[in-house]
Amino acid sequence: MLAAVMTGFGQELSHTTVEDPRLQGPEDVIVRVEATGVCGSDLHIRSGSLQNVLGRPDFPYVLGHETVGTVVEIGAGVSAIKVGDAVALHPLITCGICQDCRAGRDMYCADALFPGVDQRTSGGFAEFVRTGVRSCVKLPKELSPMDFVAATDAWLTAYHAVKRVLPFIRPGFTVVVIGLGGVGQFALQCLSALSSVNLVAADISGDRLSDARQLGVSDTVLVSSDRPIDSWNGRLGSVDLVFDCVGATSSLESGLALLRRGGMLSIVGAGGDLNLSSVAATGREITVMGNYVGHYEDLLELVELIRSGAVTSSHVAYPLSQAEQAMQDLSSGRLSGRAVLVP
Amino acid sequence: MLAAVMTGFGQELSHTTVEDPRLQGPEDVIVRVEATGVCGSDLHIRSGSLQNVLGRPDFPYVLGHETVGTVVEIGAGVSAIKVGDAVALHPLITCGICQDCRAGRDMYCADALFPGVDQRTSGGFAEFVRTGVRSCVKLPKELSPMDFVAATDAWLTAYHAVKRVLPFIRPGFTVVVIGLGGVGQFALQCLSALSSVNLVAADISGDRLSDARQLGVSDTVLVSSDRPIDSWNGRLGSVDLVFDCVGATSSLESGLALLRRGGMLSIVGAGGDLNLSSVAATGREITVMGNYVGHYEDLLELVELIRSGAVTSSHVAYPLSQAEQAMQDLSSGRLSGRAVLVP
Amino acid sequence: MLAAVMTGFGQELSHTTVEDPRLQGPEDVIVRVEATGVCGSDLHIRSGSLQNVLGRPDFPYVLGHETVGTVVEIGAGVSAIKVGDAVALHPLITCGICQDCRAGRDMYCADALFPGVDQRTSGGFAEFVRTGVRSCVKLPKELSPMDFVAATDAWLTAYHAVKRVLPFIRPGFTVVVIGLGGVGQFALQCLSALSSVNLVAADISGDRLSDARQLGVSDTVLVSSDRPIDSWNGRLGSVDLVFDCVGATSSLESGLALLRRGGMLSIVGAGGDLNLSSVAATGREITVMGNYVGHYEDLLELVELIRSGAVTSSHVAYPLSQAEQAMQDLSSGRLSGRAVLVP
Amino acid sequence: MLAAVMTGFGQELSHTTVEDPRLQGPEDVIVRVEATGVCGSDLHIRSGSLQNVLGRPDFPYVLGHETVGTVVEIGAGVSAIKVGDAVALHPLITCGICQDCRAGRDMYCADALFPGVDQRTSGGFAEFVRTGVRSCVKLPKELSPMDFVAATDAWLTAYHAVKRVLPFIRPGFTVVVIGLGGVGQFALQCLSALSSVNLVAADISGDRLSDARQLGVSDTVLVSSDRPIDSWNGRLGSVDLVFDCVGATSSLESGLALLRRGGMLSIVGAGGDLNLSSVAATGREITVMGNYVGHYEDLLELVELIRSGAVTSSHVAYPLSQAEQAMQDLSSGRLSGRAVLVP
Repeated sequence: MLAAVMTGFGQELSHTTVEDPRLQGPEDVIVRVEATGVCGSDLHIRSGSLQNVLGRPDFPYVLGHETVGTVVEIGAGVSAIKVGDAVALHPLITCGICQDCRAGRDMYCADALFPGVDQRTSGGFAEFVRTGVRSCVKLPKELSPMDFVAATDAWLTAYHAVKRVLPFIRPGFTVVVIGLGGVGQFALQCLSALSSVNLVAADISGDRLSDARQLGVSDTVLVSSDRPIDSWNGRLGSVDLVFDCVGATSSLESGLALLRRGGMLSIVGAGGDLNLSSVAATGREITVMGNYVGHYEDLLELVELIRSGAVTSSHVAYPLSQAEQAMQDLSSGRLSGRAVLVP
Repeated sequence: MLAAVMTGFGQELSHTTVEDPRLQGPEDVIVRVEATGVCGSDLHIRSGSLQNVLGRPDFPYVLGHETVGTVVEIGAGVSAIKVGDAVALHPLITCGICQDCRAGRDMYCADALFPGVDQRTSGGFAEFVRTGVRSCVKLPKELSPMDFVAATDAWLTAYHAVKRVLPFIRPGFTVVVIGLGGVGQFALQCLSALSSVNLVAADISGDRLSDARQLGVSDTVLVSSDRPIDSWNGRLGSVDLVFDCVGATSSLESGLALLRRGGMLSIVGAGGDLNLSSVAATGREITVMGNYVGHYEDLLELVELIRSGAVTSSHVAYPLSQAEQAMQDLSSGRLSGRAVLVP
Repeated sequence: MLAAVMTGFGQELSHTTVEDPRLQGPEDVIVRVEATGVCGSDLHIRSGSLQNVLGRPDFPYVLGHETVGTVVEIGAGVSAIKVGDAVALHPLITCGICQDCRAGRDMYCADALFPGVDQRTSGGFAEFVRTGVRSCVKLPKELSPMDFVAATDAWLTAYHAVKRVLPFIRPGFTVVVIGLGGVGQFALQCLSALSSVNLVAADISGDRLSDARQLGVSDTVLVSSDRPIDSWNGRLGSVDLVFDCVGATSSLESGLALLRRGGMLSIVGAGGDLNLSSVAATGREITVMGNYVGHYEDLLELVELIRSGAVTSSHVAYPLSQAEQAMQDLSSGRLSGRAVLVP
Repeated sequence: MLAAVMTGFGQELSHTTVEDPRLQGPEDVIVRVEATGVCGSDLHIRSGSLQNVLGRPDFPYVLGHETVGTVVEIGAGVSAIKVGDAVALHPLITCGICQDCRAGRDMYCADALFPGVDQRTSGGFAEFVRTGVRSCVKLPKELSPMDFVAATDAWLTAYHAVKRVLPFIRPGFTVVVIGLGGVGQFALQCLSALSSVNLVAADISGDRLSDARQLGVSDTVLVSSDRPIDSWNGRLGSVDLVFDCVGATSSLESGLALLRRGGMLSIVGAGGDLNLSSVAATGREITVMGNYVGHYEDLLELVELIRSGAVTSSHVAYPLSQAEQAMQDLSSGRLSGRAVLVP
């Protein structure tokens, strides 16, 4: 089959022929890829900057962890889905047996494979991909599979983060979302669909703030690149919840400073470090939550949320042969919408 | 002042002059009534059918427990509100000291007064009413006080019931609301604003079902008066949550039969009895929840929900002098919208 | 192998030879039975009184749904346990794929087998039993497998019911447990281990009440068989939570009458019917919860609770050949402790 | 009356005569102090190191925010307690009107007074202290008021922190408590009483670890002062929950490193800073919670927990005239048990 493969750290992706994936166990499933999203972590993996965490693959390695497609072959033990089903793939292939899997906390499974990420399991920048029945979510027929691509990773992270804070927010609470890239916009949509709070959106781009006004936002803050903390005059210490979808040191610091006593900082984007004073964390009873993608049940719910029209997703399609172009466009910040590769 | 007073069980309300209310303690507040809603329980109290629960007043007694107005006088210990403030009145005057009050469970306060209901404290069918600072919610200026009348009791019950089940419902779950009177319609609005589920509305009136389609409902069921349970063909045993806003024996039975294993029946309306088999309740792991109005914090949140436009409220105004007419119109079922008395 | 088989409704169990169970799928596991508990539901199944719910087997049928043993054979897809492991068997063999299974709500799986109960899957009154890897919980070596027999069903129900109410009870709350048979005693132990409330135990037997004083109970109530409700003088309307481990109509009625506003009735035993007035359920904001055995994760936790010594379990052993005697002793109420059959 | 007063930052406390407190409002209460605990924050206030947070009082200022005593005078609006009642004083005098107060989140009240801390309201290092009815918890007669002194602040923090994590811990989970001073010991007691987890205690003192074995601990870790992180070999990445009762930079770092994916770090002690990488916080889905004393309802529950004997409290009594000695003994680390001043 054709695939866009990584041949070395820092090398351009190469559109070339690799071996077709084959069933290896009774619960395996082969999926013909309809589309696979291109994610910021693909850039980091390709550059080698995650090498100390993920190790080094035997190149060539196929990236891609955000995939929808059609089932073309199933293992002997698979009955829940059948050939021809349109499916979204949860990013992990989990063991199904450990306590975390049994309790619905799939993302904590210690024996999971992470295709396209773990440096040994091939991902979705290809015509076909091998997955497991436990990773498949059957897609509703009302919409195109393309409408669910980003739901399998980027939007899943946003939904998971929002779902975890719902028990803590109520009408009248003020929630700030910092960073209006795709994840931040999707977090805004999820918050609008599932709660009724005073939503404040913040970004360094005035255009993005204008767009956000369509998403249920009641107020916006234009963040100064020079002195981010000064952008928040009059709001510091008054906010119930902050979603930091940037994760830079300056956004984390602002997020923390915005919180009122008892407030929560939910970290969705990553990159920088937060210096958390224990005197402040206790004296102001602050909670900081990191978020790691989302569990399988989260994906089931998110697919329903999209199907019902409560939230919507958009993307920019590239042919698989232009995978390198998509990576570079993502890297340059030129994109508006999720880049997806279509074989 | 003028008031619509109850002079005996079963007697027509009399529009007459009674003594003005006076401050009796440092936390008391006198409110000039803008409007007071007329509630089904006013009919029951007037008929005497609740006499065994509530006792018998020294007539004349002033009904009315759903009031908005303007503060005209405050006790020496009141600083949180001031003369001239527009306020909604939580239906109870609570002690503020007991464990339930301290923990925000105001409705469980054993020492509360219930103006217009408890047969000793005068209610809101009058030009003025005495309340306490702890019962007042300051109203936002964006809307008219009239937009909040029903929020102080009827809508509060719906919101409270919805809020209690939010932790148990998720995208993809099926929720049935039985009974599309004001409370049921408002429950639908709250569910639409605060969750994203498959909403099914059920009523004996086809017109009401048509109207419900504006409120985020994905499906409707026309309930047969003859054989209600037969109306649900194909749904029995498949529903995650039922709100019974009727509370008749037949609706309770249908509600129970609709539930899948692990399902919940939330009772909002009252009247009939439910025969709950312990074999069914355990074998199907059923939860049944009764709902009693709403706590003070619920009212704060509901006022925000209305202010933000997430839900809307409508009413039919009567002059206070036509209180008896409003009672009779409510009794006859002729009303569409909450009847409110305007002094 | 030898088994105690049911040859017809109402017939005595027959100790005879039946075919050995065989692996049928890649996730199957054959377990040599160390012990299987005898449960009240075995009596009901044998009598035929559950025939309208469960259907009718092709006799002979092997009962038994509360089993511990040793793994003797595993399917090709099994890696989480190995031959020789001591295991407790969760009562259901669940599909592992449906949303309920994926979210840890195993008991709601619509495709589950229920060995010894579902009238088509053989149970544990035998030398060997077939189960699935997803039903196995590896047992800790500090204790004997016998210490975990009842944990797989009877105690599991008690633990599950207690776990579900923990979010609602706090130091100072009053919790009543009605019925001090094995399940009631175990519920008391779980409540003592996992909360700090005022525990009140109620039973018709003074001896059982005396024993209960060892289990952290602060007060006891001797229930009159004649007029049960009169036994509760001075407590009616004051209790936060009632566990009804009897489930008779009179105990359900008493349980409901005991509750204060906002109180909960948790039904663990079953048999009778509760007449629930919607006026009372709403006016007193009552919650009624039925409980159905326990999820797989509940069993994992319960095994830990027993291993740590926080709760203890006892039993009365019968050789498998005396299964009928055990059934009759259970039926007569002569037993103190869980009857278990040892092949 | 006599009091131990602070006459300047860094000055010794002076045992001298000051004016008696007087009722100032209808909800005020004058309490004759039985005992007031001496807290680490008293040292910080006295040194002036909190001056930038708390401001500077008009000296002399009376410290002390952990008080039990007997009611000797009540305001006109007080009916919930009466002269002669033994009471514990919640550390804050809250407004009772704001949304946080109404919802039971007293510690977040923005208008609260903090006697002995806020630099304008006199505290409990004196014969009498003025408080409000909303701060009083009536004490049970089974025990001496002295058994509840530390419950009003130090133990309250431990209980509050434990209560907040109870929904997240289950039998089989591993919980580490770092730092076995009074707060850490009390946290261990609360965890033993209210959960059943694998408790691991860690400290730099072997003696304290030996003592901890009485408190339900299943394992201990002796922390090396030189290289704290090396003390945890084999546990890093495996722990579900860490309570850091020290709050030093090194203990915070160790706590974070101990956590498994999905783990929580609960900060109870304060002093150092935590460098929280957003990559780690998201990739490992870490939650960090700061804890600020405890709400009024927490204190009600804690008083019940102590009354029932589920947890016990000890102290070292000093006459009020030796307040300075108590401060110095606390400062030197010589104390075992809470120091309390007895007028």
